[in-house]
Amino acid sequence: MTQRAPLSTLSADDLAAYRSARADDYAALQARGLKLDLTRGKPSSEQLDLSDRLLSLPTTTTDRAGTDVRNYGGLEGLLELREIFADLLGVETAQVLCQGNSSLTLMHQVVTDLLLWGAPGVDRPWKDEEVVKFVCPVPGYDRHFSMLADFGIEMVTVPMHEDGPDVDAVAALVADDPSVKGLWIVPTYANPSGSVCSQEVAARLMAMPTAAPDFRVFWDNAYAVHHLTDAEVKSADAFSLAAASGHPDRPIMFASTSKITYAGAGVAVVALSEANKAWFLRHLGMASIGPDKVNQLRHAEFFGDADGVRAHMRKHREIIAPKFAAVDAALTAELEGLDVAEWTRPTGGYFVNLDVLDGTASRVVELAKAAGIALTPAGASFPHGRDPRDRNIRLAPTFPSLGEVETAMAGVATCVALAAAESLSG
Amino acid sequence: MTQRAPLSTLSADDLAAYRSARADDYAALQARGLKLDLTRGKPSSEQLDLSDRLLSLPTTTTDRAGTDVRNYGGLEGLLELREIFADLLGVETAQVLCQGNSSLTLMHQVVTDLLLWGAPGVDRPWKDEEVVKFVCPVPGYDRHFSMLADFGIEMVTVPMHEDGPDVDAVAALVADDPSVKGLWIVPTYANPSGSVCSQEVAARLMAMPTAAPDFRVFWDNAYAVHHLTDAEVKSADAFSLAAASGHPDRPIMFASTSKITYAGAGVAVVALSEANKAWFLRHLGMASIGPDKVNQLRHAEFFGDADGVRAHMRKHREIIAPKFAAVDAALTAELEGLDVAEWTRPTGGYFVNLDVLDGTASRVVELAKAAGIALTPAGASFPHGRDPRDRNIRLAPTFPSLGEVETAMAGVATCVALAAAESLSG
Repeated sequence: MTQRAPLSTLSADDLAAYRSARADDYAALQARGLKLDLTRGKPSSEQLDLSDRLLSLPTTTTDRAGTDVRNYGGLEGLLELREIFADLLGVETAQVLCQGNSSLTLMHQVVTDLLLWGAPGVDRPWKDEEVVKFVCPVPGYDRHFSMLADFGIEMVTVPMHEDGPDVDAVAALVADDPSVKGLWIVPTYANPSGSVCSQEVAARLMAMPTAAPDFRVFWDNAYAVHHLTDAEVKSADAFSLAAASGHPDRPIMFASTSKITYAGAGVAVVALSEANKAWFLRHLGMASIGPDKVNQLRHAEFFGDADGVRAHMRKHREIIAPKFAAVDAALTAELEGLDVAEWTRPTGGYFVNLDVLDGTASRVVELAKAAGIALTPAGASFPHGRDPRDRNIRLAPTFPSLGEVETAMAGVATCVALAAAESLSG
Repeated sequence: MTQRAPLSTLSADDLAAYRSARADDYAALQARGLKLDLTRGKPSSEQLDLSDRLLSLPTTTTDRAGTDVRNYGGLEGLLELREIFADLLGVETAQVLCQGNSSLTLMHQVVTDLLLWGAPGVDRPWKDEEVVKFVCPVPGYDRHFSMLADFGIEMVTVPMHEDGPDVDAVAALVADDPSVKGLWIVPTYANPSGSVCSQEVAARLMAMPTAAPDFRVFWDNAYAVHHLTDAEVKSADAFSLAAASGHPDRPIMFASTSKITYAGAGVAVVALSEANKAWFLRHLGMASIGPDKVNQLRHAEFFGDADGVRAHMRKHREIIAPKFAAVDAALTAELEGLDVAEWTRPTGGYFVNLDVLDGTASRVVELAKAAGIALTPAGASFPHGRDPRDRNIRLAPTFPSLGEVETAMAGVATCVALAAAESLSG
């Protein structure tokens, strides 16, 4: 690798030459007629194949207690699967409910219940408030934001750091404004930054005084066991921290097997304090007689135990870690030293966060699209899709093949460089 | 069978003798130490066994269009299964969405959406109304009523007749009161009366003027294909009738495979008008990336086509029709001619509706319980569990074995007779 000078330090002539060379690269890229997609965090077929034993499970139709899983009932979910998730999430089995195929659905249900009925012990429905606000660390998960927007909940952003949300900013927002009712966080290998919320940040989030008595932290631990390196981080212990600081009902934890077994045909999990659990079940019981216990038994048999999940996740890692390495390699090859982009090298999760030169993210996505490379829309990781600096791009390298990731990312790097050169040429 | 005189016509001495004989019967019943349960409409193990081929399905992981069902997406559900349900429900495939494991959940979602966002074209959320009322034909399905109660929706009852709800009563309630927003109906083999809503009644329900522009009929066709005789009735064509009378968005139809394949591990279905569908999907898309398509493909393979479902339902009928006959036989043997009870002989569905002497239903349930026979609580088929005449009991004979049904129902008949004798002895 030759040592490169930051693009902004180039003379006008050198910049023009650089831009011209990148334009040639881009023309060549377009000429290839690619059709590649890095938009969504989906497992690849090869990953899905790892779970195909599910297709001939369960081998029995009764759970450990002897209950026929083919019939109604069991609102809390299958005990043996709840135990596995309790182990993986570091919570008590009694706190864990196993439900349908989507943790997003569970989050939607919890917000709905808060809107319609209010939190336990408060019982003033959020729908009766003039305004309800959530603190949203950015960049964050687009589906969290679109859900809040649909609910008419205002989003106030704070920066996401390497150790979690900017906790000073969060604490300041929640301290005096009782309309700030919630915070959404992906604590481990955050979408898209890959950040891991430290025990210290988690402790402050759980302990900080809030003006709202019914303040809730939506702890979306979607990637708790989705490690990309041997350093398998342990998620911060939200419940213990919350209980220790006198706010046992503050965190509500979510997870699922969507990126463990099959995406959309797995099992979703919510973990709650005793009061939140009773409250959630009371309303859930109006909408459901029980979850799909056959699918839960299918999963319990497939995993065996929590270590079975951990072993299974290492097989995922073998498939996807090289794709993340390819992203880094392609960006490094094209952009290192130019000072026009920063990107993460996540140790888990499903995304790479790419920050390009301010004001060029939309242009990069547009260039990539015109070259047959679909990227997540610029700004997707911000509320209402609006990135105030227009610099953030979420890369999702798991679904395409390794070769496709290499090709696509070389192309993306070209687009980033070209857009930067255009911008600096002003 | 000796010809019996109505119990109310007996002399005081004869009534005392009758009561004493029934008290002896009851003592003998208690002495048997039974432990039987007629409370809930659950399929029996033998019925569930009919679907055990599901456990090794699907045999492929792609749908007809070649999409990998193991991955995210497909919010509307698997096309081949939507086609099967469109055929069974007599609607267009485009109207049908296949979702999770519970139609109750889908009903809950629709009411939630109406509360939070309002109906399409109206867009005044029901939560902003002073009061929201539903018309509830009684006796009806307890879970409909408990859901409405939890939502804070007021319930106004109308009688359920053999051909559906008392449509004059309904029409009068909805004509002038814009707070009457909905009607819940099980149109075919109603829970618990077994009534089948006629085409004429359905036509009036769909055509009647309503003060509320966003009036909705929750058409819970849970038992559309659950015939108990060769007379396989065709459900009234709600959508055509609604469209023909200029109210295309009035009906929303629900169904599921809960009592076709596995209860709780099946697939639920909602059918909607074009406007309702777009509206429902818009909010559903905030809560879900798609349903469990693997389970949907499992079901599509299992059924093959709509005729496959119909053939499968005849196997259910072979198992459960004798149980319904046993209910009738036991009640007839003990109670015929006494004029203290009326009961249905349903031609489909899951329940027998037993009306006992006014004021004695609670006593019957209490007596049965003390003899080890669990019945659905008296009043369960009425809003808030309050039967103003205390006469209605819902019998659910599918889950116990035939022998258990015979034993339990002989006991129930004894309790009905004893309670009536007690009451008439005043």
